[in-house]
Amino acid sequence: MSDQRPISRASVLRMELYLDVLDRARADGRPFITSAEIGEYTGVSPEKVRQDLFGLGTNGRPKVGYNVEELVRLIRSVFGLDRVKKACLVGFGNLGRALAASDIWADAGFELAAIFDRDPSVIGMRLNDLKVRSIAEVFGVVRTQGITAGVIAVPSGAAQEVADILVSAGIRGIWNFARVKLRVPEDVAVENQSLSLGLVTLSYAMKAAAC
Amino acid sequence: MSDQRPISRASVLRMELYLDVLDRARADGRPFITSAEIGEYTGVSPEKVRQDLFGLGTNGRPKVGYNVEELVRLIRSVFGLDRVKKACLVGFGNLGRALAASDIWADAGFELAAIFDRDPSVIGMRLNDLKVRSIAEVFGVVRTQGITAGVIAVPSGAAQEVADILVSAGIRGIWNFARVKLRVPEDVAVENQSLSLGLVTLSYAMKAAAC
Repeated sequence: MSDQRPISRASVLRMELYLDVLDRARADGRPFITSAEIGEYTGVSPEKVRQDLFGLGTNGRPKVGYNVEELVRLIRSVFGLDRVKKACLVGFGNLGRALAASDIWADAGFELAAIFDRDPSVIGMRLNDLKVRSIAEVFGVVRTQGITAGVIAVPSGAAQEVADILVSAGIRGIWNFARVKLRVPEDVAVENQSLSLGLVTLSYAMKAAAC
Repeated sequence: MSDQRPISRASVLRMELYLDVLDRARADGRPFITSAEIGEYTGVSPEKVRQDLFGLGTNGRPKVGYNVEELVRLIRSVFGLDRVKKACLVGFGNLGRALAASDIWADAGFELAAIFDRDPSVIGMRLNDLKVRSIAEVFGVVRTQGITAGVIAVPSGAAQEVADILVSAGIRGIWNFARVKLRVPEDVAVENQSLSLGLVTLSYAMKAAAC
């Protein structure tokens, strides 16, 4: 299955939490951080923190901890965040517009290079430097611009068709917001975005607090 | 800190994955599922699956596995997903509209009961049975409707002010899409939604596949 990968989702989640706490340490001008501090902020046990970071090839110094800048560079490198990849977005409805306008792309190493939709009333709209193009142009634009990732923000019923188009255009990774299981070749990475996870977590936290 | 809680984010993520695979088993009409099958789909080791589910108070039967319906009920109960909680959404821009129109609410045990915005050109717009109300009405509506959760989908610069309003109105949990750390009382649960996590994961998967 294409959503199997050599690292667990839980590991990726922890790395994201580590990057978050490292960002805060940087903002506070702190050069070092200990596994205990990382653990306190993220809820991950300090042992697991040390194990994860050892797995990346680094050890903290006793009583000093990890060099914040080095650790950020290391995690970003391991996750490929330091290599800019071009992405296209398919679907310029509410969700697509929210994603396109957000500041999440660069932090994750992506550049949003093209936007597509099938709705003639949307095609031609502009967001910053980008003009929304017809879905019929995916094939040509992806090839000529060297786009390797595609974001699917279309209704569920259209998601598989869009995935097929993206794959045939040569896309290597898909970020899928539709709540359907996409069928793609083994060598195409698919990340299914579950928005409901946040709500489930909130539900748990509210139950724990007995609200 | 309000985002510390007695269960780790990684545990919640695994439970969400379990619910996902259980939904598929239900759709396939399968009454039982083994920890090995859950592990294969989710990428969690079967040992960890058994440990997690034992922690919820259940054991699979040897060679048969877990009763799918019972396990779904158990997880939903532990996470409070079986208790309907009323939520309000603040911010009816692109992200807010996408969230309001999505089908994520009921699965996580929430009912979207009110929408607020401060923009006069948006106030009065309708989505299904809901009319967008002025942010000035938060206090009264939250109280009279018994709303306990609030979703913040406003620009980062306005998020803290909105959080203050929600808290003063009596909200017990906040799902925050703004990329700011909110200051709220200890007893208010905050779930910060990181959209970038999906992109980071995709970046890693694409790097692993050497695209």
